[in-house]
Amino acid sequence: MMTNSENAVEALQGMFNARSVALVGASSTPGKFGYHTLETLINGGYKGQIYPINPKADRIKGLKVYPSITDIPGAVELAVVVVPAPFVPGVLREAAAKGVSGAAVLSAGFRESGFPDREAEIAAISKELGLRFLGPNIQGFTYVPNKLCATFFPVITKVGPMAVIGQSGSVTAALAEWADHEGLGITGAINLGNQTDLCESDVLEFFGQDEHTRAIALYVEGVKDGRRFLDVASRIAQTKPIAVLKSGRSEVGRRSAASHTGSLGGSDEVFSAACQQHGIVRANDLETLYDAAKALATLGEPRGNRVLVISTSGGGNTLAADEAEKHGLVVPPLPEALKERLDQIGLPPNATVSNPLDLAMIEPEPFKQAITIADQFDIADIYLIVFGDPVEGGAEAVKHLAAHVNGCVAVAYFGGGATESASRVEIQEAGIPVFAAPERAARGIGAAVWATKYRRSLRGNA
Amino acid sequence: MMTNSENAVEALQGMFNARSVALVGASSTPGKFGYHTLETLINGGYKGQIYPINPKADRIKGLKVYPSITDIPGAVELAVVVVPAPFVPGVLREAAAKGVSGAAVLSAGFRESGFPDREAEIAAISKELGLRFLGPNIQGFTYVPNKLCATFFPVITKVGPMAVIGQSGSVTAALAEWADHEGLGITGAINLGNQTDLCESDVLEFFGQDEHTRAIALYVEGVKDGRRFLDVASRIAQTKPIAVLKSGRSEVGRRSAASHTGSLGGSDEVFSAACQQHGIVRANDLETLYDAAKALATLGEPRGNRVLVISTSGGGNTLAADEAEKHGLVVPPLPEALKERLDQIGLPPNATVSNPLDLAMIEPEPFKQAITIADQFDIADIYLIVFGDPVEGGAEAVKHLAAHVNGCVAVAYFGGGATESASRVEIQEAGIPVFAAPERAARGIGAAVWATKYRRSLRGNA
Repeated sequence: MMTNSENAVEALQGMFNARSVALVGASSTPGKFGYHTLETLINGGYKGQIYPINPKADRIKGLKVYPSITDIPGAVELAVVVVPAPFVPGVLREAAAKGVSGAAVLSAGFRESGFPDREAEIAAISKELGLRFLGPNIQGFTYVPNKLCATFFPVITKVGPMAVIGQSGSVTAALAEWADHEGLGITGAINLGNQTDLCESDVLEFFGQDEHTRAIALYVEGVKDGRRFLDVASRIAQTKPIAVLKSGRSEVGRRSAASHTGSLGGSDEVFSAACQQHGIVRANDLETLYDAAKALATLGEPRGNRVLVISTSGGGNTLAADEAEKHGLVVPPLPEALKERLDQIGLPPNATVSNPLDLAMIEPEPFKQAITIADQFDIADIYLIVFGDPVEGGAEAVKHLAAHVNGCVAVAYFGGGATESASRVEIQEAGIPVFAAPERAARGIGAAVWATKYRRSLRGNA
Repeated sequence: MMTNSENAVEALQGMFNARSVALVGASSTPGKFGYHTLETLINGGYKGQIYPINPKADRIKGLKVYPSITDIPGAVELAVVVVPAPFVPGVLREAAAKGVSGAAVLSAGFRESGFPDREAEIAAISKELGLRFLGPNIQGFTYVPNKLCATFFPVITKVGPMAVIGQSGSVTAALAEWADHEGLGITGAINLGNQTDLCESDVLEFFGQDEHTRAIALYVEGVKDGRRFLDVASRIAQTKPIAVLKSGRSEVGRRSAASHTGSLGGSDEVFSAACQQHGIVRANDLETLYDAAKALATLGEPRGNRVLVISTSGGGNTLAADEAEKHGLVVPPLPEALKERLDQIGLPPNATVSNPLDLAMIEPEPFKQAITIADQFDIADIYLIVFGDPVEGGAEAVKHLAAHVNGCVAVAYFGGGATESASRVEIQEAGIPVFAAPERAARGIGAAVWATKYRRSLRGNA
């Protein structure tokens, strides 16, 4: 039986860690997928062998081209297939003959285009010859620990703790791009497409075992096998958090999803209830999926749900506190003894010594002092630092705190121009989550606290 | 009676269009508000006279310094006050003696810091001497048509159609920064602070009359006079749309708002109901406020609520369509005759010719062709173009369409790396709204359609 998950994970391990790649359908013509995929492979910094395949070319981008995969002299561990759909069955047979671990079929023109027979054909070839594959109808995949960008877009070079799995190529790419751009980074970004063979559950299994991955962001329009998905996702969520966005909730969205990847959505309420029960974070939009996964991947396991909100901005404080309470967090009042200590650090008269704590200063030092003192009083499990205006030296202060206090540290940086841009990346690259708005921080932290509580309850130490 | 709104608007007009500014408390020491405010004034490109006031300095940043406002030889139309709170009453008396139109009191240390008497004192001076002022406890204000950045942060140079009014300095600044950075621009960004004299209703009145302003984004923690606010806001919303975010909805948020600006929030439900009734868009978080105001400022009056969603990305399509239906928009199916026409433009086999329309191509030309054809069938009032992956030439195509089709054009650009960054600004600078995620586009468009419907219903042509 080819669909068992153990074999799938082995195949994915072989594909993602491949030391040699055949790009079947490589092209020297800009605008063609076969051109951009080769370019992305090269620009990603892949260290293994790249074999472009094209019967009509000799060299592309300086690389020797082979007429077919079976003409390659050495071993090939991964086949990336971008040829037109009618040629895919033949290519897969050749790849199997060559002994590759697995294939990524980027080509479209199968079930989603009204050719279910063609899709059945490649499914049968996979079963018959034992060749596992991702796709068809995908943008490709990226596995950053191996510097392998087997996709026509984007080039991702920043390794980070978040894995991205998505049915949509551009949604998967956007999540990966955001993470790369912000300094969070990813382990991998895998576009699922039609899931003819390997499906979301198989890729989940892989990232569940992947040592580099601390949390998984998943975008689905429908799942291939609901029972298996819940089985796999709920098992992984016991130790490694998962955030999921399932679209196709409206009638028109379901129609769109059905034509896009041929998915049948199923009941949204049932899906939500199952996520809730199994500790899987359900996000309602793309940015919330990203923020939740970011928090899950970087915050570790907060001790509890108490948040001290601390800011240069009374407005940012109020927005963060409002949203925190909506997401299961508490913003506890400060004990008098702590207030007395904070009154001694020389805050300006318009500072507000309470929780939220408004420093009314744009200097980094009061943040360090206030949080260090608060930490001694054990009044919060998470310190949410809300930077509004530019805080020169803010990144240094945040990194110092993250290294020295017992509570978790998270940042919302929602203004501050050039200072913000530089500081955000510096803080995020240090593994401390930075969110783009006060409310987004509160939602992300809420997700991490909720998932932690779930895992603790399973371990009996809730 | 000093608090009538006509006098207030006149005062604000004088302040915002001031041809000369005295900065009382200018400093040569980086880190001091008096230093950064002078720097921002200069860097904003202000063309009028700047008079730094400081009894202990001779020149700051190359400008001649005066010991007091009364020592300035020429006329002074605006006083920007950053001296410590105890000196503010004296400064206001001097400003009134000098005949300035109004003042912006950035200094903190009044009601919000436990000194209500000091605040009462400046209120009395204002009444007695007829000097209107913004603040105290503010970051300042910006009025871009006059290149006047009377604030310690940020420098805003891009004139655009959105006005920002906010009780919080950093929230006001963040909205202005986002608009500047993205190419949307603002007319003004006014931080209200304690609203001792001039309040949100006065500033609303000003922007209601301001010819450059097409929509107003308002952030409040509580309003000074609820009845007058609703009176003014509902009158303006009849012709110029307003989006409002009111924080302090949770208990802890109310506590934070009260200590920040001394605001009493009042019932959130009552506020929401009043907004609903009077055509004022109520946003639930900061990014939604920004997106709504952006749509209100740029989309004009869509003819109706029908949206054609068109994308390179099936996933982006699905997310946009899902959210559209939640916000009062319809995503109607395409008539067969239109589908036949679209089938002739040479889309790839995995394109989905329906609404949402998935082109499955990252070329700009099919967008132009498909929307131009769809426009002839009058099936949509708004064309929402969802770019996932980079579309070279996408900006050009969007601008062409906006100039040539009858429906409104809006863009969601949520991935695409460097291409996205450049195209987003180019499109936004052409006055076409660009949103950072598919769902954010749907929410923004929903707000614009709702507010338009309200205005039409008042005009009797709903």
